Amino acid sequence: MMASLRVALLGCGVVGTEVARLLHEHGDDLAARAGARLELAGIAVRRVGRDRSITGVDPSLFTTDARALVERDDVDLVVEVIGGIEPARGLLLGAMERGASVVTANKALLAEDGVTLHTAAEKHGVDLYYEAAVAGAIPLLRPLRESLAGDRIKRVLGIVNGTTNYILDRMDSEGSSFAEALEEAQSLGYAEADPTADIEGFDAAAKAAILAGIAFHSPVVAADVHREGIADVTSADVASAKAMNAVVKLLAICELSPDGQGVGVRVHPAMLPRTHPLASVRGAYNAVFVEAEAAGRLMFYGPGAGGVPTASAVLGDLVTAARNRIGDAVGPRGSWYADRPVRPMGATVTRYHISLDVDDRPGVLAAVAAVFAEHDVSIETVRQRSEGPDDAELVVVTHQATDDALAATVDGLTRLDTVRAVLSVMRVEGE
Amino acid sequence: MMASLRVALLGCGVVGTEVARLLHEHGDDLAARAGARLELAGIAVRRVGRDRSITGVDPSLFTTDARALVERDDVDLVVEVIGGIEPARGLLLGAMERGASVVTANKALLAEDGVTLHTAAEKHGVDLYYEAAVAGAIPLLRPLRESLAGDRIKRVLGIVNGTTNYILDRMDSEGSSFAEALEEAQSLGYAEADPTADIEGFDAAAKAAILAGIAFHSPVVAADVHREGIADVTSADVASAKAMNAVVKLLAICELSPDGQGVGVRVHPAMLPRTHPLASVRGAYNAVFVEAEAAGRLMFYGPGAGGVPTASAVLGDLVTAARNRIGDAVGPRGSWYADRPVRPMGATVTRYHISLDVDDRPGVLAAVAAVFAEHDVSIETVRQRSEGPDDAELVVVTHQATDDALAATVDGLTRLDTVRAVLSVMRVEGE
Repeated sequence: MMASLRVALLGCGVVGTEVARLLHEHGDDLAARAGARLELAGIAVRRVGRDRSITGVDPSLFTTDARALVERDDVDLVVEVIGGIEPARGLLLGAMERGASVVTANKALLAEDGVTLHTAAEKHGVDLYYEAAVAGAIPLLRPLRESLAGDRIKRVLGIVNGTTNYILDRMDSEGSSFAEALEEAQSLGYAEADPTADIEGFDAAAKAAILAGIAFHSPVVAADVHREGIADVTSADVASAKAMNAVVKLLAICELSPDGQGVGVRVHPAMLPRTHPLASVRGAYNAVFVEAEAAGRLMFYGPGAGGVPTASAVLGDLVTAARNRIGDAVGPRGSWYADRPVRPMGATVTRYHISLDVDDRPGVLAAVAAVFAEHDVSIETVRQRSEGPDDAELVVVTHQATDDALAATVDGLTRLDTVRAVLSVMRVEGE
Repeated sequence: MMASLRVALLGCGVVGTEVARLLHEHGDDLAARAGARLELAGIAVRRVGRDRSITGVDPSLFTTDARALVERDDVDLVVEVIGGIEPARGLLLGAMERGASVVTANKALLAEDGVTLHTAAEKHGVDLYYEAAVAGAIPLLRPLRESLAGDRIKRVLGIVNGTTNYILDRMDSEGSSFAEALEEAQSLGYAEADPTADIEGFDAAAKAAILAGIAFHSPVVAADVHREGIADVTSADVASAKAMNAVVKLLAICELSPDGQGVGVRVHPAMLPRTHPLASVRGAYNAVFVEAEAAGRLMFYGPGAGGVPTASAVLGDLVTAARNRIGDAVGPRGSWYADRPVRPMGATVTRYHISLDVDDRPGVLAAVAAVFAEHDVSIETVRQRSEGPDDAELVVVTHQATDDALAATVDGLTRLDTVRAVLSVMRVEGE
């Protein structure tokens, strides 16, 4: 007779419900692939008694005592889809201490305290998997940890937040304002009533921290990530991007510093050439572009959120953890051996797109160019357009320079008498 | 002191050279990730004495006796990059019998006799990995086998041959003829002097067999794959595709039959809408589009060939196999439990794009439409264009029907007096 393993499910919201349903519906396939039947031992929820008619799930499995559930002796595998730092962390640490392997979709926790979780998994000889924490259903962490284990990743460039990508895509394709696009995203359920975590880049920053840690074998936490959201992206920015055959995307960027000794991790809106594979990622889709020394340029694309896609990633991890348990093996460990420090944003090498409202008279361009030269920032292109009798818009795209030098340049420009206003500043990536 | 594992490398061509070089150059990183130093025990080549100055490789490691190398007691891991059926199969089976885990890039062998290799790996308790066999550096087999282990894959649609994608891309973007584009591909090294394996779809068919086996947990061999190459794709086909906002691609398609009980596996040129993510895969790049029940639509993109990218995939597998060996574990087994039969091409449901040279007189369209109706094939669009005083071109795009019904329809059309010639027939995919 086939072995069976018992699974505790912590949380039964959008993702948890789908995990429970698919565990039942795909039961035979999962058993054939894992080498053991996966049986639900219990489902921890905040309140029982709500309508929880999930196909195939015995109502008596619901409990409000998550702590008692993870401490049961007969639980082999724990799936955590509650989210947030506590009680999730305490429950996962308790489960691992008791010898259960854990699968989680909790990006906030992994980005804040991944080292503690990995250390516990190693100490107790259990598995810790979290594919669903970054880019939903897209197989990404396993490829980075395992498929690219023989390579050197140089850069990870990702669209890892579907809400902001939907908004920026509407601004680009429909000419919507930020406010209109946000409202539309909310009415379609792509954005929450309080969209702060998405719009301000907190969600993307947590994912960037996780990606950077894995890609560069170094401990990175969410607080290390330079973060700028998309609330200040204007229709004019999007139009400027269009004029240079580019598109505005909220990017999570993890990269080795030029000397290879440090890591840069940042989330901000940026202009990306339309020829870049990430530029054609539409709507709420996610995609992650990876540059590796030997493998070259890779891209992973798919739905980055949603209950069903996220449940697919959770179940993939669950099958792997089950297979390991049956084979008395454990999967890859947390790997921080390189221990590269996170470099400050100012040291990051990037390019700027700057729009200025200037007086339309001789000598203005010379004065502006002098400010760039003063900070050793070289200019790639300048476009000047008359806006009225003595008013002009000047659009400057720079060559690469440190973010410090570029920021100092912008600061210098604001001090020029001939510059009436700095209309917009946006980084240019992907070239 | 860190453990060490000894690696035998079979073959030292384009891929083998890079494997040897990267093993040396990335030695410290690989050791940190695998948990053991990977030491080259020997390199089997056809002839020693050729110029083989690979950075860091001791010239005394080269041998022409591959058999003796894999039978050495001190070899833990064997990497095979010779290609072809024999002697590769015998060497790998010998290595596994002796207890070594193996990593191979050999698509022909896996597609012909994957079950034998997997059975041997299971019997002897060793690993068998072959990420490099399909789509070069793109992490694809590990995501399909592991990340999607909790899901149901419905369809895999791939551009898995860079040579033919380069040729078709040139025909589309530059208006080249097939012959011109092939010559260009050869002069750039994208196509071999004898391009048969690529052009006729043999290479893609082997990869399709491997993908179908993994995706559907069923044994599929290259001979099961319906195969049509691109040698007959004309500039007119490419122009017809353009006219319907589509592009011609050589696709490897693996899909569950509509009843879920069988598997269809085919390689042929097809028209794909330009809005499909695969349509924008340019040049010699590869990409594989996966439709899964829960995960939705995923895409994996990257370089599909080349010594360095392929070596990245080989080394990723090697690190995993080494990690398993150190942890006394084994990776996922070959999985054929579903054992679905391969359905004949005639039962495949697809759509056709058909161009006809017809008499330009009343009643022709009625006669043509009657042939479609007779075979229960419904028409989506018809475009008619006068070509001369009594000559017209008729372009028909069908709705979905079985390939048998569509082929019988084309056969019926050739028998019509009013049809002067069937100019082209191509399948339409991706909608």
